[in-house]
Amino acid sequence: MNILPLSIKSTSRTIPVYLGREMDESLIDFIRENFGHYAVFIIGDANVAFFHRRLLEEQLRVLPRFRGTLTFPAGELSKSRRMKNVLEDRLLRRQAGRDTLILALGGGVTGDLAGFVAATLHRGIPLIHLPTSLLAQVDSSIGGKVGINHPLGKNLLGAFYQPAAVFTAISFLKTLPQEEFLNGLAEVIKYALLFDQKLWNLLEKQKEAILNRDLDLLEEVIRACVQWKIRVVEQDEKEAHYRSVLNLGHTVGHAIELLSNYRIKHGFAVAAGLRVAAVLSRNLLNFPESFVQRLNHLLAAYGVDLVRWEQIPHFTLLKAPFSPELFYPVTEKEFQDAFLSPALR
Amino acid sequence: MNILPLSIKSTSRTIPVYLGREMDESLIDFIRENFGHYAVFIIGDANVAFFHRRLLEEQLRVLPRFRGTLTFPAGELSKSRRMKNVLEDRLLRRQAGRDTLILALGGGVTGDLAGFVAATLHRGIPLIHLPTSLLAQVDSSIGGKVGINHPLGKNLLGAFYQPAAVFTAISFLKTLPQEEFLNGLAEVIKYALLFDQKLWNLLEKQKEAILNRDLDLLEEVIRACVQWKIRVVEQDEKEAHYRSVLNLGHTVGHAIELLSNYRIKHGFAVAAGLRVAAVLSRNLLNFPESFVQRLNHLLAAYGVDLVRWEQIPHFTLLKAPFSPELFYPVTEKEFQDAFLSPALR
Repeated sequence: MNILPLSIKSTSRTIPVYLGREMDESLIDFIRENFGHYAVFIIGDANVAFFHRRLLEEQLRVLPRFRGTLTFPAGELSKSRRMKNVLEDRLLRRQAGRDTLILALGGGVTGDLAGFVAATLHRGIPLIHLPTSLLAQVDSSIGGKVGINHPLGKNLLGAFYQPAAVFTAISFLKTLPQEEFLNGLAEVIKYALLFDQKLWNLLEKQKEAILNRDLDLLEEVIRACVQWKIRVVEQDEKEAHYRSVLNLGHTVGHAIELLSNYRIKHGFAVAAGLRVAAVLSRNLLNFPESFVQRLNHLLAAYGVDLVRWEQIPHFTLLKAPFSPELFYPVTEKEFQDAFLSPALR
Repeated sequence: MNILPLSIKSTSRTIPVYLGREMDESLIDFIRENFGHYAVFIIGDANVAFFHRRLLEEQLRVLPRFRGTLTFPAGELSKSRRMKNVLEDRLLRRQAGRDTLILALGGGVTGDLAGFVAATLHRGIPLIHLPTSLLAQVDSSIGGKVGINHPLGKNLLGAFYQPAAVFTAISFLKTLPQEEFLNGLAEVIKYALLFDQKLWNLLEKQKEAILNRDLDLLEEVIRACVQWKIRVVEQDEKEAHYRSVLNLGHTVGHAIELLSNYRIKHGFAVAAGLRVAAVLSRNLLNFPESFVQRLNHLLAAYGVDLVRWEQIPHFTLLKAPFSPELFYPVTEKEFQDAFLSPALR
């Protein structure tokens, strides 16, 4: 696997993001070198464990204190206080001390939940992300955001907690359910729209191959997104200001997720939010109408344009493709104009 | 109030520790300058709120978004998941967003609990410690340790989370129950024994005045301890190694606390642990017998030598007064010799 370094300025740390086709010996080598005498637990949801647990456990069994896998039910509803308590109790009952390493094997939910468990056990124990979903590989495994939901809203409890490393194996995507794959593509389209003409063109031209999960193409796509994510996080680790550029489409997206009680997946909600943001950008910032159309076509081509919208105050918009504008205040009238726009029909 | 700066190397931040007789205008000025438009909540236990809430609320009411005080039952048993949930729910129901400042008004339990709430709400909101107990003023308010207990042990869940500032008003100690005052004196004696001949002599010579809570003397004592704590934390924020010097007496102390289900207070447990550590230091490191005696006399003079012991593996010991030795491995036999020593009778 290759290493993309993520430099955290505030703490002068560099976090290696390993990226490659297969989960190779790099993982064991990294653990041996940095956490050789640690107790090692995998935490993963039941679906992911079904596909990937056996192979990974075989690799890890050479470690002197490998302790096996803790699983929990798949789905956003597991990002709860209750599931955090359950995992903590299991770890502590199995004598997980400060010299314990957590491997978060799974998608965004697993990274957030297992990451938050690692962040607050013994005031923080080491964590390695092994993202298995497209969404986790291009976005949630990088940047240190961990947390759980609260009945009053998403991610209201959590921390910024940087992992010791991220290991992204593209081949995990082969077993990803189609809905989860599309869920991640919405974030990929977001990165392209925000920053990357070349990636955008690739997405438009290689739709068939990407939807067929051509692993070479996916590796190219994921590498581009990971590099953009790293660049953003390096500039603004704790989302003081600039990191919110990644919230394009998320203001509306989060509202949709919450109102659906998380039955609508993140990516589909974000796709809806991207369309609203594009129309607002056209109305308020002269974002070109032609690109509103191209965005709608792209989202439709990838089958991620499934939901409609809700309102909210501050938006990340675009002055032009690949040129974002942060915290743009949108009035209710402007929002309604966009909302009623034929471009959203 | 005077400012003692605490420099956190890893993040290049400096945390001001304000120290003075009374809580003066410095607090309001600091909040206005740094968190002028924030919603401000006090979190404090019911006992502390009874004595100090009214005066503090009067001072804070000039702030544009002061939201009042959230209280919880006093005592170590409030350092629980349940109480953390209750405080989070109350804050979120009152629309506490990212622009919320928490003032932790109280002793060690309040700082740990309210601090952990601040550390994980919205991935971390600003926190100011207003320590009201001697223990919190000399120790727990400084250094960023926050957390709660778990049925399997003390402080098993938590984080390193530095406050925006600490405001230590000596006059809070006037209303402190005698047992709580003695509880803090054990930690003061620990600092003296670890580092400070001058403080040790002061404690031996001014016993009457200190027990009568002469505020001038207490300010001198607390300033010395705060400076030692700052020096240790600056060298090793996250207790990688050196910060464990402060664990002198705590290995045995924590065991006593846990086994008593926290009915024995921290300081009394630590006092017991200090006596064990001194005897072990004499047996293994030639710590002078005369000082074992002086320690026993000092703890007795201040009335903090109330409990007996339990065993455990690694100790912080002393080669001589003011010269600590970290992670000394103690065999069961050596421990028993110390345990059976007449010096502990």
